[in-house]
Amino acid sequence: MIIVMDKSATQEQIDNVIDKIKDKGLDASVSKGIEKTVIGAIGDERILDPELLESLPGVQQALHIVKPYKIVAREWHNEDTIVNINGHLLGGENIQIISGPCSVETPSQMAAAAKAVKAAGVRLMRGGAFKPRTSPYSFQGIGFEGLDMFKEAASAQDLPIVTELLDVRHLDTFLEKGVDVIQIGTRNMQNFELLKEVGKVHVPVILKRGLSATISEWLMAAEYIASGGNHNIIFCERGIRTFETSYRNVMDVTAVPVLKRETHLPVIIDPSHAGGKAWMVPSLARAAIAAGADGLLVEMHPTPCEAWCDADQAIDASELKTLMSELTQIASILNRKI
Amino acid sequence: MIIVMDKSATQEQIDNVIDKIKDKGLDASVSKGIEKTVIGAIGDERILDPELLESLPGVQQALHIVKPYKIVAREWHNEDTIVNINGHLLGGENIQIISGPCSVETPSQMAAAAKAVKAAGVRLMRGGAFKPRTSPYSFQGIGFEGLDMFKEAASAQDLPIVTELLDVRHLDTFLEKGVDVIQIGTRNMQNFELLKEVGKVHVPVILKRGLSATISEWLMAAEYIASGGNHNIIFCERGIRTFETSYRNVMDVTAVPVLKRETHLPVIIDPSHAGGKAWMVPSLARAAIAAGADGLLVEMHPTPCEAWCDADQAIDASELKTLMSELTQIASILNRKI
Amino acid sequence: MIIVMDKSATQEQIDNVIDKIKDKGLDASVSKGIEKTVIGAIGDERILDPELLESLPGVQQALHIVKPYKIVAREWHNEDTIVNINGHLLGGENIQIISGPCSVETPSQMAAAAKAVKAAGVRLMRGGAFKPRTSPYSFQGIGFEGLDMFKEAASAQDLPIVTELLDVRHLDTFLEKGVDVIQIGTRNMQNFELLKEVGKVHVPVILKRGLSATISEWLMAAEYIASGGNHNIIFCERGIRTFETSYRNVMDVTAVPVLKRETHLPVIIDPSHAGGKAWMVPSLARAAIAAGADGLLVEMHPTPCEAWCDADQAIDASELKTLMSELTQIASILNRKI
Amino acid sequence: MIIVMDKSATQEQIDNVIDKIKDKGLDASVSKGIEKTVIGAIGDERILDPELLESLPGVQQALHIVKPYKIVAREWHNEDTIVNINGHLLGGENIQIISGPCSVETPSQMAAAAKAVKAAGVRLMRGGAFKPRTSPYSFQGIGFEGLDMFKEAASAQDLPIVTELLDVRHLDTFLEKGVDVIQIGTRNMQNFELLKEVGKVHVPVILKRGLSATISEWLMAAEYIASGGNHNIIFCERGIRTFETSYRNVMDVTAVPVLKRETHLPVIIDPSHAGGKAWMVPSLARAAIAAGADGLLVEMHPTPCEAWCDADQAIDASELKTLMSELTQIASILNRKI
Repeated sequence: MIIVMDKSATQEQIDNVIDKIKDKGLDASVSKGIEKTVIGAIGDERILDPELLESLPGVQQALHIVKPYKIVAREWHNEDTIVNINGHLLGGENIQIISGPCSVETPSQMAAAAKAVKAAGVRLMRGGAFKPRTSPYSFQGIGFEGLDMFKEAASAQDLPIVTELLDVRHLDTFLEKGVDVIQIGTRNMQNFELLKEVGKVHVPVILKRGLSATISEWLMAAEYIASGGNHNIIFCERGIRTFETSYRNVMDVTAVPVLKRETHLPVIIDPSHAGGKAWMVPSLARAAIAAGADGLLVEMHPTPCEAWCDADQAIDASELKTLMSELTQIASILNRKI
Repeated sequence: MIIVMDKSATQEQIDNVIDKIKDKGLDASVSKGIEKTVIGAIGDERILDPELLESLPGVQQALHIVKPYKIVAREWHNEDTIVNINGHLLGGENIQIISGPCSVETPSQMAAAAKAVKAAGVRLMRGGAFKPRTSPYSFQGIGFEGLDMFKEAASAQDLPIVTELLDVRHLDTFLEKGVDVIQIGTRNMQNFELLKEVGKVHVPVILKRGLSATISEWLMAAEYIASGGNHNIIFCERGIRTFETSYRNVMDVTAVPVLKRETHLPVIIDPSHAGGKAWMVPSLARAAIAAGADGLLVEMHPTPCEAWCDADQAIDASELKTLMSELTQIASILNRKI
Repeated sequence: MIIVMDKSATQEQIDNVIDKIKDKGLDASVSKGIEKTVIGAIGDERILDPELLESLPGVQQALHIVKPYKIVAREWHNEDTIVNINGHLLGGENIQIISGPCSVETPSQMAAAAKAVKAAGVRLMRGGAFKPRTSPYSFQGIGFEGLDMFKEAASAQDLPIVTELLDVRHLDTFLEKGVDVIQIGTRNMQNFELLKEVGKVHVPVILKRGLSATISEWLMAAEYIASGGNHNIIFCERGIRTFETSYRNVMDVTAVPVLKRETHLPVIIDPSHAGGKAWMVPSLARAAIAAGADGLLVEMHPTPCEAWCDADQAIDASELKTLMSELTQIASILNRKI
Repeated sequence: MIIVMDKSATQEQIDNVIDKIKDKGLDASVSKGIEKTVIGAIGDERILDPELLESLPGVQQALHIVKPYKIVAREWHNEDTIVNINGHLLGGENIQIISGPCSVETPSQMAAAAKAVKAAGVRLMRGGAFKPRTSPYSFQGIGFEGLDMFKEAASAQDLPIVTELLDVRHLDTFLEKGVDVIQIGTRNMQNFELLKEVGKVHVPVILKRGLSATISEWLMAAEYIASGGNHNIIFCERGIRTFETSYRNVMDVTAVPVLKRETHLPVIIDPSHAGGKAWMVPSLARAAIAAGADGLLVEMHPTPCEAWCDADQAIDASELKTLMSELTQIASILNRKI
């Protein structure tokens, strides 16, 4: 850690900072510049709190120089992690598209969706049985019954299922009912109690980015899961909140190269929630794969205009098929396979 | 609801929208302008989903004209709600300052804090036993044992206690241990499962604004609590996330007059988390009360430099006393009392 | 325009709004819903100011239903505009990459850059003689002398030149010295005096998006240029400002499909300024073309580590060549040509 | 400057950084920690560019430890600067309210406004003759003729005038016509050519904050003016752009204590543009003064509903009078005078 003192800091204030550092078992090195004095703390700086040091008299700024995350950091684990989802690989050279409807509605809707997903060459299926909705008066999902419908329809096409966990009390039932990948949604990215619980199981977890979460906070949220023992983590960018009002969110494609550099874990993108309109999805999906993403979460619905939620953002079966063909070609330019 | 059609919309597309509106049991009125056709849906528009309508061919935009929230809206309940916390009133002409340390640490720290809080003329005490922390490696609070310490120290000074609930599984124990006001933190503002549960009890709830939650989302989160039956809700602005990096968050003082217009429920501000530095607190606290806030959450610590968390933002006992005097004078200019 | 009245609006207030609309020569239609009254203004609503109407008693909200921009809107001009830059087409099926150094430094640097740009198959060259810098103490560009150096080096390779205009008083000299495309930078997107002046000439203009400009404001800025008579306008997305601090800006790739829908004018992206680091450029550049952009502005420098400004974001000659090959392949998947 | 090397940096890379620092005439000190090596550059680090250093191989991060601004920094000039506007002091213990209409419209409107401003006890008058408008089709102000009207009306009440300069070519005429304070608007905060020109004259300048300008960029913009020789600079916060859509901007009251710490120059707030609605103005104005601002820019109009621009945000004469009384009382609590 580096502590920069105020221009007017006294020797007594400098000594006080050095004492605090030594109290924690670290060493201190002092370097006097022309305008300011800088103190370096040598040792495992993760135990020093920069805010505490900044509250000491005469301190201008305290900065960590090592990253606050460790298990998820590429700095400590150089090779790409490849997540295995019932035999389907995600990461490294392997790209996976995950598709399906926003909400589970009826058995026939799910059967049609599963068939369309399979027919388009997609290997993993998504669907929501529990829906986090801004309004208490909106449709909240059909619950565990929906999970059964979903599993049955997907299994008939041999597709592993991805679904969102909202409530820590549901985790055991999710596992019993055969959920293959647990999704942690945007609003729960910093629901630390939920993160701790999914850290204790071994099923892969898709961790969506919070609406205004920084890359560093997102990596720390993954570190919560990883530190519990579950290293099967997939980051999912799904649009961030900005000042722009012409579209729902801004898909942050820069997060892809940055995360790939910071972490060894795979990174996927959800272009459907990012843009919020079906007509934007092909453009955003292509951009995501061209940027180097390891996969996508794409909403599709057999009959989008009749969907019970987020109707506006689901593409239909034929659009999914065309998209898969474009994405496969882009992947091959990058020496990857879908 | 108002539906604006594209300039190039066909009569068939217009008829299709009208059919969808009538299917839901509402009436439709059509108004043809020079450039565009506008359709109005007449009836209880809350059952119409603007996103669904926008996905229909030929529709440019669909807009709600009634507010999506109802119980919390001033439109439907004109007088100020006054929340009663063990006999201390908050709302209307009554301003309450709530103060105490960020974290519960030791019995002697809590006893000293409670005495200082009382001595400054403050009537309600805050303290955290469970702490939501960005890093899994940071101090996470001392848990239920801390809650007991806190209740004991506060009761000795006859101060009701305010503390944060992180985990839905802790609610019963919180009530058993005598928590007087439950705080829902920033990261949980849209943890809908937690909101539903606190909606079922009757203890007052402080609902902090999410880091990048809009006023409308915040009101809807309160509507989750209210629709469960608990109308003792206090909004707490605590700084929003913006592009600015010189301070932790931007305290959104404009939220005060806007919320006071939109809702009958009380609105308080947390200047300590907003700014993130103790030296900013007096300035921000005065601004909050001058803007019309119904109260404050202010961090104080008997010995700030030794605090276990967020040291940098706690003021000390003497600063709290000075601040209380300034705030009391500002309140009286506005014909209110602290 | 649609005016939504408050639930409690009186008949007198409704009549007053109708009078104001009629005063402006428009017609009014009134539609009484169950909860609220809505008034429609029929005629050329561009002359009504929503803010003025919202200041009238009893008005909840006033909304334009026609777009505020007209010349640049696809609504009024359906085919893609193709900008012709000395015989090189940009727009429609034609993609153009524009490359070169951030700053003009020396004749030999510019000669080397021009050769590398040409060798990579790029047809247009960029370079800055006047630099807008955050600090008055930073290098501000070498001025008109640099413009001469740039023009000479580029002409030797038969490359039209693109350069930024900072000062309205420089416009004539820019044209005399043979600038082929004028760039209006981020900080000047709403320098309306500058926009009005470039609207009077006929040289193509690249209009960069303001750091936090909405799509609508950006289109209106282009309308300033277009309403002066210059319709050779190219939009350039270059990263927006958000809460994220891990990278300089967030490249807003969603702006591409959205602008392509709203305007007939071409849209390019500057991945170098967006990310701020050379290692991000290939990933972001591929994403931009895959999303449907009509071109790119890419910084390259013959010897990046010796660059006088923005060193960190320039790729070198060999990286440019590799990138051009990838982009050409992606373009062909989309049936376009580079 | 501090340069933090990557964990995997080689000795050769470290030596290369040291060479670059020495090339610039500074000294280097190396400090090897357990995980990383840190290099300090000793001397006048303002000549080192952190981005250049970060582009060198093996460098993780380069950080300035001295502030990039100097003339405007309190670090180098501890006492408050008091700006003298024709005998009226602004800064130190002196608070000034500046009021008047958004736009100059007619001689009678300006005469009525000047009388109302004077009657409320306000000592400085504002008004716009040239208006920066988002749309080229909106009213752009009545120009120099309006300036004459404004000066005449204000002089009759002995009020110095404050008005916005949009075009560098207008500066001389502004001075000839007796403009007492030049306002640089939000959209021109980084119009560096304009800043350089107002830096050459001696009339006080109100520098409004850019819509999404950081505190540091704002201070650097002031440094542009100051480095030209004009030190009569007044900062004006006027609301920043965020994700919130319920109000026009977010008034950043935290900027007040932060700027007062960073700079010796005065800081005022414009609550009218910040909120965008007249009914918010009293609340925001009180908050600004309570936070420690040195003054306000408040829009007032003799007949707001007839205003030609920004009607919705102007208060009327009687509201201004009431507000002045509240503000005077708040100022006296802080031992200041209005």
